[in-house]
Amino acid sequence: MYELGVVYRNIQRADAKVADALAALGASTVHEAMGRVGLMKTCMRPIYAGAQVSGTAVTVLLQPGDNWMLHVVAEQIRPGDIVVAACTTDNTDGFFGDLLATSFQARGARALVIDGGVRDVKVLTEMKFPVWSRAISSKGTVKATLGSVNIPVVCAGALVHPGDVIVADDDGVVCVPRERAAATLDAATKREANEGEKRAKLASGVLGLDMYSMREPLSKAGLRYID
Amino acid sequence: MYELGVVYRNIQRADAKVADALAALGASTVHEAMGRVGLMKTCMRPIYAGAQVSGTAVTVLLQPGDNWMLHVVAEQIRPGDIVVAACTTDNTDGFFGDLLATSFQARGARALVIDGGVRDVKVLTEMKFPVWSRAISSKGTVKATLGSVNIPVVCAGALVHPGDVIVADDDGVVCVPRERAAATLDAATKREANEGEKRAKLASGVLGLDMYSMREPLSKAGLRYID
Amino acid sequence: MYELGVVYRNIQRADAKVADALAALGASTVHEAMGRVGLMKTCMRPIYAGAQVSGTAVTVLLQPGDNWMLHVVAEQIRPGDIVVAACTTDNTDGFFGDLLATSFQARGARALVIDGGVRDVKVLTEMKFPVWSRAISSKGTVKATLGSVNIPVVCAGALVHPGDVIVADDDGVVCVPRERAAATLDAATKREANEGEKRAKLASGVLGLDMYSMREPLSKAGLRYID
Amino acid sequence: MYELGVVYRNIQRADAKVADALAALGASTVHEAMGRVGLMKTCMRPIYAGAQVSGTAVTVLLQPGDNWMLHVVAEQIRPGDIVVAACTTDNTDGFFGDLLATSFQARGARALVIDGGVRDVKVLTEMKFPVWSRAISSKGTVKATLGSVNIPVVCAGALVHPGDVIVADDDGVVCVPRERAAATLDAATKREANEGEKRAKLASGVLGLDMYSMREPLSKAGLRYID
Amino acid sequence: MYELGVVYRNIQRADAKVADALAALGASTVHEAMGRVGLMKTCMRPIYAGAQVSGTAVTVLLQPGDNWMLHVVAEQIRPGDIVVAACTTDNTDGFFGDLLATSFQARGARALVIDGGVRDVKVLTEMKFPVWSRAISSKGTVKATLGSVNIPVVCAGALVHPGDVIVADDDGVVCVPRERAAATLDAATKREANEGEKRAKLASGVLGLDMYSMREPLSKAGLRYID
Amino acid sequence: MYELGVVYRNIQRADAKVADALAALGASTVHEAMGRVGLMKTCMRPIYAGAQVSGTAVTVLLQPGDNWMLHVVAEQIRPGDIVVAACTTDNTDGFFGDLLATSFQARGARALVIDGGVRDVKVLTEMKFPVWSRAISSKGTVKATLGSVNIPVVCAGALVHPGDVIVADDDGVVCVPRERAAATLDAATKREANEGEKRAKLASGVLGLDMYSMREPLSKAGLRYID
Repeated sequence: MYELGVVYRNIQRADAKVADALAALGASTVHEAMGRVGLMKTCMRPIYAGAQVSGTAVTVLLQPGDNWMLHVVAEQIRPGDIVVAACTTDNTDGFFGDLLATSFQARGARALVIDGGVRDVKVLTEMKFPVWSRAISSKGTVKATLGSVNIPVVCAGALVHPGDVIVADDDGVVCVPRERAAATLDAATKREANEGEKRAKLASGVLGLDMYSMREPLSKAGLRYID
Repeated sequence: MYELGVVYRNIQRADAKVADALAALGASTVHEAMGRVGLMKTCMRPIYAGAQVSGTAVTVLLQPGDNWMLHVVAEQIRPGDIVVAACTTDNTDGFFGDLLATSFQARGARALVIDGGVRDVKVLTEMKFPVWSRAISSKGTVKATLGSVNIPVVCAGALVHPGDVIVADDDGVVCVPRERAAATLDAATKREANEGEKRAKLASGVLGLDMYSMREPLSKAGLRYID
Repeated sequence: MYELGVVYRNIQRADAKVADALAALGASTVHEAMGRVGLMKTCMRPIYAGAQVSGTAVTVLLQPGDNWMLHVVAEQIRPGDIVVAACTTDNTDGFFGDLLATSFQARGARALVIDGGVRDVKVLTEMKFPVWSRAISSKGTVKATLGSVNIPVVCAGALVHPGDVIVADDDGVVCVPRERAAATLDAATKREANEGEKRAKLASGVLGLDMYSMREPLSKAGLRYID
Repeated sequence: MYELGVVYRNIQRADAKVADALAALGASTVHEAMGRVGLMKTCMRPIYAGAQVSGTAVTVLLQPGDNWMLHVVAEQIRPGDIVVAACTTDNTDGFFGDLLATSFQARGARALVIDGGVRDVKVLTEMKFPVWSRAISSKGTVKATLGSVNIPVVCAGALVHPGDVIVADDDGVVCVPRERAAATLDAATKREANEGEKRAKLASGVLGLDMYSMREPLSKAGLRYID
Repeated sequence: MYELGVVYRNIQRADAKVADALAALGASTVHEAMGRVGLMKTCMRPIYAGAQVSGTAVTVLLQPGDNWMLHVVAEQIRPGDIVVAACTTDNTDGFFGDLLATSFQARGARALVIDGGVRDVKVLTEMKFPVWSRAISSKGTVKATLGSVNIPVVCAGALVHPGDVIVADDDGVVCVPRERAAATLDAATKREANEGEKRAKLASGVLGLDMYSMREPLSKAGLRYID
Repeated sequence: MYELGVVYRNIQRADAKVADALAALGASTVHEAMGRVGLMKTCMRPIYAGAQVSGTAVTVLLQPGDNWMLHVVAEQIRPGDIVVAACTTDNTDGFFGDLLATSFQARGARALVIDGGVRDVKVLTEMKFPVWSRAISSKGTVKATLGSVNIPVVCAGALVHPGDVIVADDDGVVCVPRERAAATLDAATKREANEGEKRAKLASGVLGLDMYSMREPLSKAGLRYID
């Protein structure tokens, strides 16, 4: 959050197998498995529907209207990373377009999550390079002021440390702290395991009221039925 | 609006034939036919494009961050209903996901209209269960506080009584009071009937200025043409 | 901006060849070629993805909740025009639908850019009539109060004179002043010409840091690398 | 909500003594006494700090950019009333200024609550005519389109019937249905009665944890203290 | 709007007497006198209540997060001017504080109108230097990128040419084009002249319905009274 | 951010003398002294003008619509603390009112900073208990779901660790990490020391252009003056 003008080259990434496995569970299940924390705000939307990814975070702190540090962070990307870009202030300028996406993709990045704007979204969609952003904007940026790379950042309300795991899909973006990634994968997998059975019951017409035994607590809370 | 902790089991639904027939006319035409009232705010967006539905409202009032009452309302759904969920305060949490959708669909619900957030949108899209909401969010909810079912609610700025007809499509969501449903269907059908002829004229190059005889009132209002 | 109740019939349009050629370059490149000015705000979104157009602006100033002047502007459309609709106040009502679109298309309009709402978006999509708007809304409008046609307007934060060139795609909407259109086309074409080579380099793994010779200025600005 | 072009002259107002007595309790206490419902959205702010009023609602439904019906509602005001103005769409125009305030005040109105904009706020402040609105705006309006007077309206998310009681202060605006006004006054008065004692305890350093016996339920819910 | 990196030193200011005289009429009356156009958006709020000013515009176009050009514009200020600052993108950073205010005041500026953020608002209030802005923010800015001075700008939705007259008070900010300033002063003065008489009538209980002869047009429009 | 249901009783607070001394410098100067980072978003506004405080943070993470943890955090307050309340989702409910303020004040708290709503603002103002919040709302809350106390939180976009220093005034709220508090005080004091001299120069008519030697860099950047 606080150190400007620095690039941390050595970060400790979450275990790759764990980071990779979280994608299939999706943002909502992972968020629940973490105890309902770690989400970015709902203003973060994918530029195209259907992408579902996970990966290890490399972070970058941008200045408003300035995308210089996106070129700096490119060098720190390793295959399997997701770039998480925060900004020192609210700004929707188009920090990122098809050229940077080409570079990020060449370095092995799986996605960009940016609390700002992006452009060239048609090309990005054709390239299958997914981006979650708060805006789409043609607005160009300058390269004049330093931010930082691989420091902890607050991106769309979520704290992200470099090396944490990012899980993103049509529902949104969640950050799993590196040290909790394995436990979260376990918990999320267990949640998922129960869902099939529940879905079958509900599809057959069984009510959640009965399946989850809610009638008694609802009654205790004072719920009254009126005919 | 005002009674918490109650579930009305017997509501008077609008005539099913009328409720069903309104879908084909669409939200904009129905809204016009009602005299340009009854619309929900434009923040209510479909989770996928192309759905166009109508049905009778069962209503539910939620508390922020709490989806307990969605399980309660499930039991009150009859085939042909649309669930309309309001909240006692602005809240974008993900109150509704694929499990509840499975249950709602099994009960015969045609759609959900919710002044809040939803999740699992990819699965909901595959299930063809349409939702109109103000947000998409992974944020999980608790089951701790009572709201009500089948009381009048204000949802996204529109007053909805249980049994009213909801019409929703890509243009938005409109509520037709039960007692006005038949008259609205008539009026909307008449509006629609004229549209084909108008469209043909306009497509041939005839101007609205002439087709609607606007030149004289415009001139009276003081419109000046400058060459 | 300031004259109400007038329609300018004779406007000087940008050169048609220039206006037509700008579409292929897209909003972001054209905006950069103009020196990073001329953009509309990011609230302006296309009603469907993939449209990319350019054309000469005919402008109209609307009153809130009133679409009378859209019928007036229809008569002033010539093939190759794009209608740019501003409003005297923030208003998201559905000023425009499929009938007006039929008329506009019959007159040769390529698109509508409106700082307000539109409706019948499913039909507009089927008609392939692209609209950039700040909202989608069923809300109907009246025909009671005069605005103006072909005066300079501020639309979503951008000043547009009649005859200027509008370029719009998935990234947004940019206005190119008529007198700068040719120079902008040149500059944008040159920008585009370099992009292929840059993209190839970046795709091969060359970093922007090296391709743009950023390492020295970054170091001078004080960037420190920490292992 | 649904009937346009009508003015209901005879409405049943809540008991004047009850309506008057609610002011002293304030919006927050009254809202709690009603079971935490009935609030308008937080965008409704007073034009000056310190006003605290209650009164019986006369309602008006406006069209965007059009204040004609405010002149119509003026005639329906009786001493002790508060005018509640809704609009068929989101609109922040300056529907109301010092002339209408002079008229309203002369008719005995105590305040205006408007889901729109107001102007002449300096003069209104000098006149001590309080207004709660979602915006302050110089934007002038026309007098061209009918709304209605004394129909039920949704104002800033709250349903208001003519004759209901409005309570407004620096915390916001709450609507108490006429038929619940007396019971709400009782409940609110009781709430208030306990507050002095609670305040004294808390001021002496007693914790809410102990005063409300929260330690056991917190522990049961799983709260852990870590030294 | 379109030229960056230039400072126009010689601008034609509106007549000083006219510019000065408009303050007393206030933003709302002046806006009406211009035909209900020329207003900035309602997000522009004064940092303290009660200021009411008018003056000739010197304009500046800023880059996001960069206040370099505010130092450049300071030199162009003459006594009686109001600085109007626009930005190439939405940005709420604190571009302006007490040091710049000291400089602007020393040069004779009467106020700042800025489509961005300001800081040191307590000191600015003590200095009696009024500012209308869209935000208050401590966020510091850099001095790295050129904008322009005394070009036409769009500020909070209003087009402002250098030399135009700005009128600002608690109701908002309006821009009067230089060439229309004298006529607007006349029209506004006439409006104001009638207000005293109207106010006296309304205060005596005469209704606007009668004073403005609205009963007949309302009836023609279809208004029905129901007892 | 991530641990729910825990209360850390022993936190390391920043040095009290340093924490106390930062108030006089104000949020804007402290923010600059930290290198232009650490600010909360501009939606955080004081409930009354003129308060200027600093103190050590005790933090609390709330659930939407639930203020249970505010009672838990009260016990952890020591004289000189400022309570910083974050929420797991965007929520503007009135979590805090005069009773909790009485308790907080009795425990020695200097202020509350809350990414949510507050109520009883008139009484809070009379009590001289300053609050910075994103909303004012009467909406009541429940006591049903656990959050945490004295874990790191993201409040209005800023990361706050328990024991950090909070500085808040009319300009906004800034968080100074505990380990950087002394250095920030030094840097801020130095900034402040230069301001008097600068202010005197600017008041005498010296331009920032000359005082900061900007003419040459502006010229190098390409600024052109046109007569």
